[in-house]
This record gives sequence, structure tokens and C-alpha cells, in this order.
Amino acid sequence: MERNLEGLLFPGSVAVIGASGTPGKVGHALFANVVASFAGPVYAVNPKYTELLGRPCVASVEKLPEPVDLAVVVIPAEHVAGVLKSCGERGIRNVVVVSAGFKEAGEEGAKRERELVEIAQRYGLNVLGPNVLGLISTRVGLNATFAPRGALPGEIAFMSQSGAFCTSVLDWAWHEGLGFSHFLSLGNKAVLTEVDFLSAFARDPQTRVIVAYLEGVSDGEAFIRTAREVTKEKPVVVLKAGRAEAGARAVSSHTGTMAGADQAYEAAFRKAGIIRAQNVEELFDYAYALAKQPLPKGRRVGIVTNAGGAGVMAADAVEWEGLEVARFTEDTARRLADRMPKAANIYNPVDILGDAHADRYKEAVRLVAGDPNVDMVVALSAPVAILTFAELAEILAWARQKFEKPFVCSFMAGKLGEEAEELLRKAGIPSFFDPARAVRTLRVLCDYLEIQRRPREEPRPLAVDRARVEEIVRRAIAEDRPRLGLEAMEVLSAYGIPTARGGLARTPEEAAQLAQHLGEKVVLKVVSSEISHKSDVGGVLVGVESERVEEAAAMMLRQIRRKFSDARLEGIFVQELLPPGREVIVGMVRDPTFGPLVMFGLGGIHVEVLRDVAFAVAPLSPGEAEDLVHRIRGFPILKGVRGEPGVDVPRLVEVVERLGRLAADFKEIVELDINPLLCYPDKVVAVDLRLTVTGEEGT
Amino acid sequence: MERNLEGLLFPGSVAVIGASGTPGKVGHALFANVVASFAGPVYAVNPKYTELLGRPCVASVEKLPEPVDLAVVVIPAEHVAGVLKSCGERGIRNVVVVSAGFKEAGEEGAKRERELVEIAQRYGLNVLGPNVLGLISTRVGLNATFAPRGALPGEIAFMSQSGAFCTSVLDWAWHEGLGFSHFLSLGNKAVLTEVDFLSAFARDPQTRVIVAYLEGVSDGEAFIRTAREVTKEKPVVVLKAGRAEAGARAVSSHTGTMAGADQAYEAAFRKAGIIRAQNVEELFDYAYALAKQPLPKGRRVGIVTNAGGAGVMAADAVEWEGLEVARFTEDTARRLADRMPKAANIYNPVDILGDAHADRYKEAVRLVAGDPNVDMVVALSAPVAILTFAELAEILAWARQKFEKPFVCSFMAGKLGEEAEELLRKAGIPSFFDPARAVRTLRVLCDYLEIQRRPREEPRPLAVDRARVEEIVRRAIAEDRPRLGLEAMEVLSAYGIPTARGGLARTPEEAAQLAQHLGEKVVLKVVSSEISHKSDVGGVLVGVESERVEEAAAMMLRQIRRKFSDARLEGIFVQELLPPGREVIVGMVRDPTFGPLVMFGLGGIHVEVLRDVAFAVAPLSPGEAEDLVHRIRGFPILKGVRGEPGVDVPRLVEVVERLGRLAADFKEIVELDINPLLCYPDKVVAVDLRLTVTGEEGT
Repeated sequence: MERNLEGLLFPGSVAVIGASGTPGKVGHALFANVVASFAGPVYAVNPKYTELLGRPCVASVEKLPEPVDLAVVVIPAEHVAGVLKSCGERGIRNVVVVSAGFKEAGEEGAKRERELVEIAQRYGLNVLGPNVLGLISTRVGLNATFAPRGALPGEIAFMSQSGAFCTSVLDWAWHEGLGFSHFLSLGNKAVLTEVDFLSAFARDPQTRVIVAYLEGVSDGEAFIRTAREVTKEKPVVVLKAGRAEAGARAVSSHTGTMAGADQAYEAAFRKAGIIRAQNVEELFDYAYALAKQPLPKGRRVGIVTNAGGAGVMAADAVEWEGLEVARFTEDTARRLADRMPKAANIYNPVDILGDAHADRYKEAVRLVAGDPNVDMVVALSAPVAILTFAELAEILAWARQKFEKPFVCSFMAGKLGEEAEELLRKAGIPSFFDPARAVRTLRVLCDYLEIQRRPREEPRPLAVDRARVEEIVRRAIAEDRPRLGLEAMEVLSAYGIPTARGGLARTPEEAAQLAQHLGEKVVLKVVSSEISHKSDVGGVLVGVESERVEEAAAMMLRQIRRKFSDARLEGIFVQELLPPGREVIVGMVRDPTFGPLVMFGLGGIHVEVLRDVAFAVAPLSPGEAEDLVHRIRGFPILKGVRGEPGVDVPRLVEVVERLGRLAADFKEIVELDINPLLCYPDKVVAVDLRLTVTGEEGT
Repeated sequence: MERNLEGLLFPGSVAVIGASGTPGKVGHALFANVVASFAGPVYAVNPKYTELLGRPCVASVEKLPEPVDLAVVVIPAEHVAGVLKSCGERGIRNVVVVSAGFKEAGEEGAKRERELVEIAQRYGLNVLGPNVLGLISTRVGLNATFAPRGALPGEIAFMSQSGAFCTSVLDWAWHEGLGFSHFLSLGNKAVLTEVDFLSAFARDPQTRVIVAYLEGVSDGEAFIRTAREVTKEKPVVVLKAGRAEAGARAVSSHTGTMAGADQAYEAAFRKAGIIRAQNVEELFDYAYALAKQPLPKGRRVGIVTNAGGAGVMAADAVEWEGLEVARFTEDTARRLADRMPKAANIYNPVDILGDAHADRYKEAVRLVAGDPNVDMVVALSAPVAILTFAELAEILAWARQKFEKPFVCSFMAGKLGEEAEELLRKAGIPSFFDPARAVRTLRVLCDYLEIQRRPREEPRPLAVDRARVEEIVRRAIAEDRPRLGLEAMEVLSAYGIPTARGGLARTPEEAAQLAQHLGEKVVLKVVSSEISHKSDVGGVLVGVESERVEEAAAMMLRQIRRKFSDARLEGIFVQELLPPGREVIVGMVRDPTFGPLVMFGLGGIHVEVLRDVAFAVAPLSPGEAEDLVHRIRGFPILKGVRGEPGVDVPRLVEVVERLGRLAADFKEIVELDINPLLCYPDKVVAVDLRLTVTGEEGT
């Protein structure tokens, strides 16, 4: 259900409830900003005045001459509920609650926030906040924040979970000349969250890129679902802070040990097509490039420089970022040879030498940018006496227009001069002292290109016996057995995941009988939910010959009974002995924010020592399952190396997909490890399994 | 041999040969800069004038009234040799050759450069260049460059292999207020190289940090030897450009395949204690922090903020950089609780809230910086109405003085104002908009702390039979057999590296005899320098029972003769069959710049797929050999995982050390792979070896 936020983001009329005439008060700063910025009707609500800053002031919401599109509330927390009700009654749909004193301020505040949410639901209010700096919408010219600076108009929609960071960004962006379509502080996200604004910004034609500073996500599932759609059309860049956040959950599986909160965010962002910025510098470098540059057709970079060193640095950065130094066509090479001086380097990076005048620079840019083998262009210059940065900026602005390819530049000097900066800004050409930083913004264009091209496949329907698993899980919960025993293998079978053949024997005689159908040698495992680390206590025997099974099983049971006299033994699991194969681990853990997180890795040291594992949020489309398997460093091992045959990767991918389905279908399953899943050239088989369920309302 | 560069770096008198009165000419710009900057005697040499810019001008070097400390040459390349001779004759010891037209300009230029070097050697001249921008020495106030800007005084000594980059840095640093002790362009490095300046800058008390932009190193061995000493006392930060440089050598070994030029630089920098910057931003961020900040005692960071989001970002960055968020003492925690408002967060990061006045901020900084568990401090602020950045800067300047700990700050705003910037600059406190960038500079202080503490151990003497290896190598070269056969095992033995037992049999009968002493089963390998990939052609048999050796050997020889009728067969190598052990690879390749580069890795997929290998420049001290072995990701596997016993790491380390010795002793060995070296809990054994020698003058 998408909310209609038109009235919030593009209001025609605004009331500030708690507007004040006292300088230094938030209610004054905010009202003054609204009055100064907004052309539509503005009202103040405050019983103390009849007029404020030249606008009508009324005593209460009820007395407003019209049900305004947007009300901004700047009053003490204890009065907010009453005012919200009045807004609801009055037919005001959109409210920004600037006031603090809610969830962030202890138990009393949390109670107030619950009340606020109830009222919002009752009246269908779009509430931003509480505890926000406010919002800015440059298209309608509204600055409804109490920040000392407004925003310039632009194509970036920005939302932030930190109000102070909003103030910082406004101040900084003003000096940088960086503009915004929308700019807002999310506050406590009591009603409206990042998901609502993702949708709304996606629909806004003025917005070319959506940027967010988030410390957490309110509804992981909705976030992924929405962002996945949005990122088809518009890039979304997120700085997720709180990386160090301690994972509070208790874990007993391998998967659980490897999966921190940050892995979950990483996987969720991947699924959603979100570009992650690691720091503030990346956040705005990426945002600006994505807002202003066209997308390239490929990864090939052409470099033009009048300083050799700068060219080398740019080429280094191209390699570092995983882009390609373009190879020019013969045609371009010939023309460069014709038109550049003899001492110039006409191969990429093209070094046209320090004595190049504007004409030579322009010609080089024209030839390089016009080459069909060049997808993007980096232009570099040291300070030289015979060429001004303004001339260079003009050349780039012209070329950017002409060639419809991404252009970035690094004019390596202290100041480029007002004129050059103005020209570059107008042309939307990112410019940095460091060539590496310029090249990095090209890489992010390629990242988004890849995200946009990626198919948004849905998980496909799979033939599974859901009812059977429901029954097993329900029984385990009813009997308070969180750790499933033998039935866990049945759970896999019900979801179409091949398991090693075997069965449960109650007695040594039954074990011998079972063994007859399982080949010459078998594996015996004691079954008891009360004994863990079975192999350490003699509860596992591998490679027992069929005719010796009865004897071995009896001995095993005697030994175990001696050690664990009170433990309930359910019997012995008799399993076929499989030939050696490639061991992998496929696991799942439930993340508090994003739900089922599937892990894949090669077994043994690859997980434990090398930590070579990858994560994805379930359910998985076939493509996502394939991507997960391919993403580990050791993937080539599965394809076969050193003359060893490869394993059946398609079947392995299908197991991953099916496990994702299982994880998504059953919230009750909190952890699951198939370890090992044995992989062969023609099949894969689950050999051992750890599966934990919970009856509690899952996350 | 260290050169005395006092006269070059701190001249008392200067002559500019080729000084010109024509604005726009390099000889004019340079002379004008010298005149404007330098207080000592300055002479022009140019037959056209008797006076220039108010200074005496003479017709030739011979006519100079004194043998100046420093001559700067700005004349056409073809006349440089003559002038250099005159300088030599006149007793002028230090010459900067600005003129271009040497090695960088084709064969004619290269000839000129050789001539220049000869003259410099003949007269013992310190020549900087040719093809340079010039040099600046702020202590004597000399700007002998033709750049439009000079340098501010400071503690950073800078050298650059790109003249244009010098111009860029000068312009940029001027605007940033960044100062230098020395600033110079290295040009073609015909005589003086980065090594000479490393030594000279190390001796200069004004210089606190040495910074270099290098595209290559002239003498790798001298570079490492010198830098290793220098970095004990002063940090050296290098931006090595040309990462993408294609490795030109042909390789046939595993080691050769893995070792590119960049790996060699990485290993050399590690050995030398050099801090590598990946880009220009890092180069100067690191340089400034190292020049201005004291070194911390440890890695624990205290964070003070008046904006929650900024604190979270800083804590994230601390984790990202591998530093620690400090845990305060109880004492500090109690005092913070006493003195900060209730809603403040008194745990690290300390959030003193947006309403904090200067007093509260100062008190928080005092308590955090004074905590013995805090090694470094990050101070953060959003723009707030009640606290100016100048006030904040003053607090930090005071604290920086009082606590002798590193301080960095991120005042997240567009402009801090002149006063705040001036205060921070004076206090030497790095300040960035992005908290992550501020924290990164703290990490580099820790990097240098670790470099400084690292013992500068020399390789120890090892008992080796050098004469024996000399003989083997000499014979192989004489007989033009670059790929050593069986003698390669002898080479290892001579250097104390344990090898599998075995011997060469000329006939199947001899093979059978040999096998009797080698256990129940043996390995047979055909020996022929003309057959590679022996196992692919049936030239290797593993696990042959002793009594079947004669028969198997005969059959093998017949088969091989059938396939390679012309190949010279030297016989059959009969080797003991070793039990399975942990396979590792120890290899060596000769880098054109740094010489013997030793590689270590786990065998098989760890090298081929996971590329989990590490490099070090030989010879190796015991500590360096240990570091090399420990540096691979998979090291814990060698210590034993999943119940498997670990291997004999000390013996493995010793093999690495001995191989390093061998590589360093014999330039004739160009490539070497021990693959595998089998490792057991109580021993290590070299099983197979590939060793290539060359008679050509090695690199």
C-alpha cells in the first residue's frame, strides 16, 4: 500500500503550529524559514498572536481558515497528541512533528509515541517524525526546517535518520553548490519511514537520485521490495551507519556465527539494487555523479591529460576500480598521430604535453570522446600558464553536451577560479583534485548500470510438500524440542533437497535390517536431542560393514548409556556411506531486520579459516541463487581445478534456491545448516543437518 | 656512500645559468623566483646582460665572482654538458639541470644524458635532474623553480618524479596552508635519485615526514637499505604510480605467474617500512597527520560529539580502520555521568547533545582525552547556534597541547570560518568534513607506530655450502642447461633445506638397487631436461612397490623413448614415497627493480584459485621469514584446524629463510619453485623443485 505523500512533499498551504515570535526559539526559526521560502498561504498557530511575520496567526488548529495541506508541529511533546487529533478532525492529512520528547526520551516518551501512532492510524495521517529537523521541497520552494540554511534546487532527494547530519549537509552543500529536490529528516520514523519516501521520491520527476543516511531500517521486507522496484528507474545511494552494532542474537550454527547485522544489510542492499557508500565523501560523490552524468554504455575509460603524472594516476585508478583503459580505434590513433605533436603520447592515457593550448586540448578531447571504444572520459590538467581552467571547463562542457558520455575531471590545482567552477557545475561535471576520486565516480556509474540491467526475477514456484513440514515443525514446537532430530532430514526431502538414504532404527536388530538396503558399508549415528557433539562421545561410526552393524550398534548404545545414563535415546540413524565428494555448506539464519538470510560456502577451512562465504536474503530467484554460489572466492573449485572434475553446479544452485524457499516459508525455523552438502559431478546430497525452530513470535 | 647534499639543499649562494630578462621564458620565471625568495648572493649567467633584476649578470660560469653553492641550469640541452664541465672546473659542486631534451627525448637525448652522467662523475657533481621543475628549500628561503607559486614553510619534505605534479601540489598546498621543508622535482634522476634525498631529508631536523611521488625506483636494493634506516626515525609516505605497468619478464614458474611489479613494490615497501598511499588524497592526509601529530601509545580512540549521527559514523570508521573504540575507566565514566546532562550518552562515543555550550564540550574533551584508556581523540560537531567552530577549535588546540595525544576533528559544515581554520592549522589538528577521513589519519599514525617499533633485524648467518651450489650453477650455465635437473635437489641440500631421499639411476637395475634403501614403496620420475610436464606423458610413477621397481622403470623408459625418440634421457630419479602432509609452495622470482622476491603460499587451490600468497624481498631475517609465513589468510591451517595436527612452523620458517639466502646469494637463479614442500608436525621436506638459471647479466 503506497501512501499518497503529494500534500506532504508538494503542499499548497502550510500552517506552523507553535510558531513563535521569539528569536532563538525553534518555533521562530522554523516559521521564519517557511515565511521566507514559501509562496503559498502560510499560517501560524499560537494563541499569543494574531499575526506573525506578516502572516495570519490563529489560536488553534480549529480556527485555521482552511484545512492546510501541511501542518508543522513545534510544541512541547505533551501537547502533540491533542494537536494531531485536531488536525485529523480538521481534515489536515500531512503533519511534520518537529517536537522531541518521544521514543528517544525514555518510557514516558515511548508511551507518547505509541499514542501518536494510534492517532495517525485513526485519522490516516501522514506523520513525519517526531523528533525531526523538518523538510525542504525545492520545487514548491518550501523550507520547513529550523536549520540556518536552506537547500539549493537540484536533482538529489535526501533523507536522513540524523537531524544533526541534515544541518551539516545543508551547510556543506550550500558552499559546494550542491542542490536537492527534497531534503528531510526522518526522526523517529513513528509513521512514515524510509520506505514511504523511497516510493514517493521515485515518482517525483525532478528527482534523479535518492540518497539516504540510515542507522537502521524499519521494515526490512518492505524496504527490499520497494527499493528493488525503485532502483530499476533511479539510483539509490545509502550510507548505513552503525556497522559496529552488536548482533544481539544467540547463535549455535555455523551460519549464525558468520552472519552479523552488517552482512544482512550488505545482502539486503544487493538484493534491492542499492549502492552502498562507506562514508560521507562517497555518499555525495556518488550522488552528484549519478544525478548529473548520463550512464555509460560500458567500462572503457579514455584519458586526456597535459601532465604525464596525472595520466598515470588516472590509469592506476581505472585499474584499481575495475574499469578498463580504453583501446582506441585505428582511426582515432591515426588522427591523434596526425594532430598531436610528435612528443605527445597518443595512446591512452593521451598526454598532449604541458605546452598544449586550448585548441589542442579540445581536439584531443573531441577525438577521444568521439571514439566508439570509449565509454567515459577523464580530463586532467596541471596548472599551466598557457591554458586557463575556465577554458578547460568550457571545452568539457561542450564535449559533455556533444557526446552524451560521462565526463569527469581533475584539474590539479588549489583553486580553479569562480568561472571554471561555475561552468563545471552548470555542465554537471564532477571535479576533484585527486584523479583517483574522479575515476571512482565513473565506477559508480558502471555499478548502477549493472544494477539497472540486472533482471528483477521473482522466486519461481517450486514443487514442495509444505504441509508435511508444517506438521513436523508444529509437532516439534508443541513438544518443546527446538532442535530437530531425524525429522530435519524429512524437512529437506519435503522441499526437494536430496538427502543421504537412511532410516531410524529403534534396536540393533532393526539397524542391521535397514543396513541391508544401504550398501556394503553404512554410517551409524545415535539419535538423541539431549546429546550434542555426538562424534566426540562415540555416537557416530563411519564405514561399518553391513554384517557388523547389529554388533556395532549394540556396542554404541551400551557406551552412550554408560556416559549419559539419563539421556533419552531415540534410536540409531543408519545412513548410507557416501563416497568422498566436494563438501559445501548451505545455511540459513534469521536476521531481525531482513528475515531469512541464506549463506553459502565451501566446507571446512573455507568457512572456518578463510571465511569465504556469501549471503543473500531469501526467498531467492534462480538468478539470485546462482549469484550466491558464484560469489565466493573459491567458486572455481566447484567448476573443477587441477584435473579434478567439477560438481553439478545447477543442482547445487537449485538446493540453495529450495533452502531459500524453506527459510521464507517457515518463520519458525530460526537457524539451519546443511553441513556438509556433498557435491558430485552428477548430483548433490545433504548428509548432515542442524535445524532449530522456535514457537515464539519470530522476528 | 652518502652524498653531502648540504650545499644543494641549503645553499649560501646561487647562480642561474640561462637566466633571462624575457617574461614568459622559463629562465626568467625561475630567476625571478630565486631573486624574490633568496636572501643570499644571487648571480645570473647570460652573455646578453650585465645585470638582471638588480643582480649581477656575468657572461659565463668562469666569470662568476665566487664558486656558488648551487648552480641552476636553464639552457638548451645541447649546451648543458659544456656548462657542467665549467661548473666542475670552477669548483661548483651542486647543479640543478632544469633543461629538458635528455633521456625523455629519444636516442639523441639519451646520449646527452650519458655524457652528463660522465661529467658529473668526473667532477663529483651533485646533479638534480635533468628535466626538472627545480627545488625549494624553505629554511634558506629559496624557490629555485619556475612554478608560479612557492611553498610555505613546514615539516614535510616532498619529492616527485613528475614536474607537473609538483606544480599542482604547490598550487593546492598554498590554498590549503600546507607547508614544506623541501620541495623538489626529481626529473630523469640521472645522478641524484630518491635514495640520496631520503638520506638527506632524514638528516634534516626541520623535516618530520618524507613524502614522495614515484613512478619507479632507480636502485631497488639501495632504496630498501636506506629507507629501512630512515623509517626508524621518520615516516616515509610514497605514492607509487604506474600500478598497471606491464611486467615484461617471461615467466615459467608459479611464483613468476603470481608476482607482478606491484607485488614487488608492495613487498619492498613493507621491508623498508614505507607507508604506501593509494592516491593523492591519502598522500597528503597521511603526510599532514604524521607531520603534525604525536604518535599514539596504542589503538584506542575516544570520540566526543554533539551530534549522534556523527558519533556513529566515527565509531564505524574506527572499526573499519581496525582501531578500537576505547572503553573508559570507571573514574571517567563516573565523572562524565556527574557532569554531562542526563540525556547525554556517556559511553564512547560520548554524545553531549546539540545544546552543549563550550564549557560542556571542553569538559567532555578534558575527561575523554585525560582517560588513560584513550590513546587518540576524535572531536565532532554539527553546526549549532550556541557554539562556534572557533570556540571548538580553541578547545581542541588547548587539549592537544595539554594531553600530548593525537587529536583529529570533523566539524561537519561547509565552512568553519577563517578563525577556526587558522586555530586548527596552528595546532596541527587535521580537520575534515567526513569523520571517516579524520579517523583514517589516526590509523596511519598507528601504522607508523608499528613500523617504528618493528625490529630492524638483519638476516642471520646460516651454515650453507655455497661452493657446492656455485659449482652446480656454473656447470649448468656452461652446458647451457637453464632448467636444472636433479642437481636442483642438491642445491637445496647444500642450503640446508631438507629434501626427499632419493637418487639417480642410469638403468632399471640401478633403480631397483636404490629403491631398496627407500622404503616399501617409491616414486619414479624420468630425468630429462628436454621433457616438461613429465607426469602428463607417463614419466612419473607414484607408489611403486620395491620389488616391482626394475620392471616398472624399464617399462617407463620404453614408453618415454617411444614418445620422445630424440630426447636425451639422463635416467630415472628414484625417490622415497612420503606420507600425505600439508602441501605448501615456497618460490622465488627475480624482480627487475628489487631482485629476489620470495613467495609463500599453501599449495594447490590456495595458490591457483584463491591466490592466497605473500611476498617478501630476500634476504630475509628470521622475523621477516616468520612474517611472510604468517601473512597468508590460510595461516591457521598450518597451525592445525578441525582436530588435525599443525605442522612444524619453525622449520617451515627456516626453509623460507634459507631459500631467501639462496636467492640472494645467486643472481644466476632467476626462478625457483619448491612445489610441494610437504609439511608434517615434526618436519618439512622438499619433494619437487623447478629451478632456472641464467648466464646473462641478471637484473
